[in-house]
Amino acid sequence: MFGPERIERWLREDVGHHDVTNEVPGETTGRLVAKEPGVVAGLGAAAAVFEHLDVDVVERAPEGATVDPGTEVMRTEGAAKATLRAERTAVNLAGHASGIATRTRRAVDATREVDDDVRVAGTRKTTPGLRGLEKRAIVAGGGDTHRLDLSHMVMVKDNHIAEMGLSGAVEEFRERASFATKIEVEVDDPADAPEAAAAGADIVLLDNMDPATTEDAVASLPADTLAEASGGITVADVPAYAATGVDVISMGSLTHSASTLDLSFRTG
Amino acid sequence: MFGPERIERWLREDVGHHDVTNEVPGETTGRLVAKEPGVVAGLGAAAAVFEHLDVDVVERAPEGATVDPGTEVMRTEGAAKATLRAERTAVNLAGHASGIATRTRRAVDATREVDDDVRVAGTRKTTPGLRGLEKRAIVAGGGDTHRLDLSHMVMVKDNHIAEMGLSGAVEEFRERASFATKIEVEVDDPADAPEAAAAGADIVLLDNMDPATTEDAVASLPADTLAEASGGITVADVPAYAATGVDVISMGSLTHSASTLDLSFRTG
Amino acid sequence: MFGPERIERWLREDVGHHDVTNEVPGETTGRLVAKEPGVVAGLGAAAAVFEHLDVDVVERAPEGATVDPGTEVMRTEGAAKATLRAERTAVNLAGHASGIATRTRRAVDATREVDDDVRVAGTRKTTPGLRGLEKRAIVAGGGDTHRLDLSHMVMVKDNHIAEMGLSGAVEEFRERASFATKIEVEVDDPADAPEAAAAGADIVLLDNMDPATTEDAVASLPADTLAEASGGITVADVPAYAATGVDVISMGSLTHSASTLDLSFRTG
Amino acid sequence: MFGPERIERWLREDVGHHDVTNEVPGETTGRLVAKEPGVVAGLGAAAAVFEHLDVDVVERAPEGATVDPGTEVMRTEGAAKATLRAERTAVNLAGHASGIATRTRRAVDATREVDDDVRVAGTRKTTPGLRGLEKRAIVAGGGDTHRLDLSHMVMVKDNHIAEMGLSGAVEEFRERASFATKIEVEVDDPADAPEAAAAGADIVLLDNMDPATTEDAVASLPADTLAEASGGITVADVPAYAATGVDVISMGSLTHSASTLDLSFRTG
Amino acid sequence: MFGPERIERWLREDVGHHDVTNEVPGETTGRLVAKEPGVVAGLGAAAAVFEHLDVDVVERAPEGATVDPGTEVMRTEGAAKATLRAERTAVNLAGHASGIATRTRRAVDATREVDDDVRVAGTRKTTPGLRGLEKRAIVAGGGDTHRLDLSHMVMVKDNHIAEMGLSGAVEEFRERASFATKIEVEVDDPADAPEAAAAGADIVLLDNMDPATTEDAVASLPADTLAEASGGITVADVPAYAATGVDVISMGSLTHSASTLDLSFRTG
Amino acid sequence: MFGPERIERWLREDVGHHDVTNEVPGETTGRLVAKEPGVVAGLGAAAAVFEHLDVDVVERAPEGATVDPGTEVMRTEGAAKATLRAERTAVNLAGHASGIATRTRRAVDATREVDDDVRVAGTRKTTPGLRGLEKRAIVAGGGDTHRLDLSHMVMVKDNHIAEMGLSGAVEEFRERASFATKIEVEVDDPADAPEAAAAGADIVLLDNMDPATTEDAVASLPADTLAEASGGITVADVPAYAATGVDVISMGSLTHSASTLDLSFRTG
Repeated sequence: MFGPERIERWLREDVGHHDVTNEVPGETTGRLVAKEPGVVAGLGAAAAVFEHLDVDVVERAPEGATVDPGTEVMRTEGAAKATLRAERTAVNLAGHASGIATRTRRAVDATREVDDDVRVAGTRKTTPGLRGLEKRAIVAGGGDTHRLDLSHMVMVKDNHIAEMGLSGAVEEFRERASFATKIEVEVDDPADAPEAAAAGADIVLLDNMDPATTEDAVASLPADTLAEASGGITVADVPAYAATGVDVISMGSLTHSASTLDLSFRTG
Repeated sequence: MFGPERIERWLREDVGHHDVTNEVPGETTGRLVAKEPGVVAGLGAAAAVFEHLDVDVVERAPEGATVDPGTEVMRTEGAAKATLRAERTAVNLAGHASGIATRTRRAVDATREVDDDVRVAGTRKTTPGLRGLEKRAIVAGGGDTHRLDLSHMVMVKDNHIAEMGLSGAVEEFRERASFATKIEVEVDDPADAPEAAAAGADIVLLDNMDPATTEDAVASLPADTLAEASGGITVADVPAYAATGVDVISMGSLTHSASTLDLSFRTG
Repeated sequence: MFGPERIERWLREDVGHHDVTNEVPGETTGRLVAKEPGVVAGLGAAAAVFEHLDVDVVERAPEGATVDPGTEVMRTEGAAKATLRAERTAVNLAGHASGIATRTRRAVDATREVDDDVRVAGTRKTTPGLRGLEKRAIVAGGGDTHRLDLSHMVMVKDNHIAEMGLSGAVEEFRERASFATKIEVEVDDPADAPEAAAAGADIVLLDNMDPATTEDAVASLPADTLAEASGGITVADVPAYAATGVDVISMGSLTHSASTLDLSFRTG
Repeated sequence: MFGPERIERWLREDVGHHDVTNEVPGETTGRLVAKEPGVVAGLGAAAAVFEHLDVDVVERAPEGATVDPGTEVMRTEGAAKATLRAERTAVNLAGHASGIATRTRRAVDATREVDDDVRVAGTRKTTPGLRGLEKRAIVAGGGDTHRLDLSHMVMVKDNHIAEMGLSGAVEEFRERASFATKIEVEVDDPADAPEAAAAGADIVLLDNMDPATTEDAVASLPADTLAEASGGITVADVPAYAATGVDVISMGSLTHSASTLDLSFRTG
Repeated sequence: MFGPERIERWLREDVGHHDVTNEVPGETTGRLVAKEPGVVAGLGAAAAVFEHLDVDVVERAPEGATVDPGTEVMRTEGAAKATLRAERTAVNLAGHASGIATRTRRAVDATREVDDDVRVAGTRKTTPGLRGLEKRAIVAGGGDTHRLDLSHMVMVKDNHIAEMGLSGAVEEFRERASFATKIEVEVDDPADAPEAAAAGADIVLLDNMDPATTEDAVASLPADTLAEASGGITVADVPAYAATGVDVISMGSLTHSASTLDLSFRTG
Repeated sequence: MFGPERIERWLREDVGHHDVTNEVPGETTGRLVAKEPGVVAGLGAAAAVFEHLDVDVVERAPEGATVDPGTEVMRTEGAAKATLRAERTAVNLAGHASGIATRTRRAVDATREVDDDVRVAGTRKTTPGLRGLEKRAIVAGGGDTHRLDLSHMVMVKDNHIAEMGLSGAVEEFRERASFATKIEVEVDDPADAPEAAAAGADIVLLDNMDPATTEDAVASLPADTLAEASGGITVADVPAYAATGVDVISMGSLTHSASTLDLSFRTG
């Protein structure tokens, strides 16, 4: 997932030109241990950092595993010097990704109280350079990546509608986009939702509407058009939106505001 | 700060191979506006993304500026197509950095209630690839970067002390390290603090001690040795630590657990 | 589309360490001219090479424009030295992309004789490093990109079906994939087509079937399931497949076997 | 030949941020098999892609080997997941290079009917990013790379002659260029060929001349000056040019217009 | 220390697109041997080049080892082809770094005749791209890296003093810089040295002063302020400066004017 | 010559993550001035660093210009902050390249006392990452680049001769190499020189022979075969070798042991 060039750059960023404290002789084992409950992710990336420096990763929890304080999620074996050099970068990656997975799981659990099928999805509000890691962390938490990049799915927005009209825009993008690409239309006004569906949108995004309005908008859509709710929705808001009948609830906060999961790396 | 190669990579990550929705004609102005109170940072990085695509940044708040909902922090002018292509990456950077600056400012403000001089510092727990951005965001928030990389300052740790003894380790690293480099000794036991100072440590890190223990340890140090408190300290804990007499309080959460600052980019 | 790092690498590849023939004084104009009929593409990439060396591109045909021998498709102005340095790389890019666009147009024209709507699509058989350029060249020729990368659309293949059964695989991937992602099922046996549709495939790929078999398979599908024909289809075969009722005909040869379009760059 | 950074980039280009179909358990063997007659090349590059993902390449045909439908040219062993991830990129490279080798062999065979020594050479009309791969593919097909980059050999062109005169230009470049570098002069008018030779050109390029004119021009050159024919020469034209006495026939089409060689990768 | 991406780039720089002389069959051993007396460094970097091409480095002298003509400093085992491909780049690195280590050792030895503690330090006058290698080579020679980059230590210069006054500048930078960062003040006039110390400088740089002036300036400083002499100091000058009481003598020539150490690589 | 990606990397190497001393307001002019006599080179690379940070280079001496103490070789205008950030890297490049040009000029001047035509050439003993800069610096000093990379010219060595015999090796490489490539044969024994010429070598390298032996070997060669002397030749040795009749004297020391040329950059 992460190639040697990127890992090297990260290590160089952390080490600088001459670290005098890293002349540690011998071999060591390392254990990455959770210090708080959560869901782990990014262990593949963390393992890649160790392996880049020829430290073996001898055991590793699966992505998405639930952990409690004390749960060991990775075990390494190798030169002490290399292990210590990789440690900080590896833990930073795993903690960051696990924080996203944990927050996602919390949101998913909140929806499950009211609905078995609604999906909790991320957005494009990811950390530059880590789009893939963060999207996969959402999946580890039980969430949905949403579109991975602008080329993945067409999102018809205000400015397109202003230029071409709602139906015109959908038609235009149906023509321009590949048959492999879905089309979603973002509407601010619930009254526009049925037109979007009629124009052939695969998904209608109901943006910045409260749960009641969202529910009405969903009701106005045909059965085979997916409905997504979005716009500043917090974990606390999730059950209310999950009850509206939407298929997807998307939340930028899964990636842009997740706290790290506290992981500790211990050697020897 | 960020070169064209990195910016290009970030844009490619967000765009993918073929985005059909970006054929927007004409010129547009853009305004980046705060939607909640906070401290802005990362505007230089955000501006670099726009400028990389030949969009002019005609006005920009200084790093560290305090903002309220509605405060405009950047204004752009240029081709609509390029402006929209840069938007998401630019906002992701600025929101991320501003979140760190805002969290830092909150911690600094909490210390100022009890002490005028104590510094709030970050750690090496930063997002891989964004060390510099995040360290500079801490500065924008009124904090202290702490060491920027492993080569910046020697940190004498458990494993060094186990191998060479506390005084032996300090002496060894004084020899190995440049005269340009400070030496800090991490102690878990307050009883070790005076020995660290006597051995010539420039700074003593009092790790995972409660405020009372910290205060005693600080009292045991000579006046010209700096004292740092660290270990899971939250913003709520900060005043108690600020009152102990330490010179520095360092917090990984400034970078690894800051929520984004909500910034909105509006065109036209 | 192509950043400075990539362009620099291409130029270095062509120039080497010390080219003694490039000390050309003064300014020059350049004209890129078609020497045979076709469809142009890749002019944006070619222009980026010139602009990287501060040569202005003062006029440029739109992507997808039809050209005849003698049609001028780009005009440059700038230092003679820089113009000549950029020339070969720029022409190689434009000729390559235009060759793909031209071949695509030929296939599209062949389908239009029998059907107004069937799409001619590319595949993942693209030149490493140039996926985006080649996919956009297909679009310039009137074709459909098909999926841009493995993450864009799920393709259920033999090995998945062997492991999970056809319906099981579709169900599994519907769960694993984002709501934003379409699912296509590749079938070698026309008898499997209806099961794929029933299992919820958005598209059914009818692989390596002759036109008659393809036509039968299409007839067995519900109206809202798209059908794609694939497998060694040549431009000569296209009309026969276009008449089968499929929605998409995909051809690896659009990218992996297109001849360059002959373009000539003239200065002064 | 290709380093990890480039391979990683190619794989990322093909995979995108999150491919849900690649969770394939277990080990597998893979066989790369020719589906049509030809000459293989690029197998080293293809092998590098597999090996980058820790898939072993246990057997491999030599570059330049002649193959028939069914000939196995590479065999791999390793994790199924990694094998499938590498497959498309590896096959794209090998098919592309083998297509060039095959086309080159065809041109070489055509010359051999009339002359045992004349060389068939490529040009600088290569795919940006793949100069080395394509030049080595020409060699695999029995051809001559021609100059690898602008620094490899001096080519005196129209614009140099216009500026310095033919003899003046040769003299000037003899001075500027290293003793290690040959000098070739491009002439459009056969009457200029002897002057070029007299001025000290190592090679004279007879550009865009028909075979009869080429033959006369060759006859006008001293024995130790090499003669090259160039300019839109097709495989069909090759025998006529080979009979003119030229030493080298160069053809851009070897690289810019070669169809892929059809190779199929089969697992299990 | 050097990642695969950088090593690949170096090898490509040396090899070019098609080296016909490297088809060497079989395995070979290689020995890197000193041809003149000196101090070796950069062997880790040289080893990384061999290992990048899967050549084993089976024995290697420690960084900083003293060598005489004939001393073997590295032994390799592996494919002859890969060994020969790596050779030139590996030897260039090791010779360059060893030249710096040797020159540093000479300067250190010259100081030891008059003083046991004074440090010989490098500067930022390093070869772009090789800062780390060269700084570590200084360490191998017994020298001090001095600041590794601008962020490592604050250097207060003329232009800062002109803008803010000497004390003002020190105070300002004490505020701006991290507690982890030392502050050095560069003075041209010995009379300014005490003010710099009083303002809180950790180190005072006495720039371009002769030994007598330097001695006076050192005498004017308090005991706990370090003094550094700098400015065109040669190895011949070193004893005179070492006798002045300075703590550090820095010399750009350690890196920018060191001759290579003559190392020879022999195979078979 | 140097792209933005490389320049960015060099600047990052020098700056680190957070330089607090670079907040310099306003515009400034800069002047790069020679402090000792020599020959300048690398000014294009230095200019590229300034221009990368939008500092204008308003005047610049030509590559190869002779300078005396006080000669101004470059003048810049732009933001003081950017000027100071670029300064060190720019001066390091120009000083390094100018040192090589100066040393080359000295060797060339030494040959001119005895012979007007003999060329002074470099070798492949260059600094990794700077091959092109250093080769072009040799040219600026009046020298000859020699082969730029392994693909530029075939060098037949001991191991090839051991494997294939001298004539066999030349014949083999004449076949394998392009017609565009010269072939040089390295001989340790002067008796082998005529055989090398007879086998068709374009150049014969007389390795590690004293001037008298070299002279005899040259005399044994036909007029149209070039002769090169090589092997630990110093500037002092150059006249003796220049008098032997060789065409080329190559010296690794031009690049691997040149002292920097002392250049000073002054602002304001």
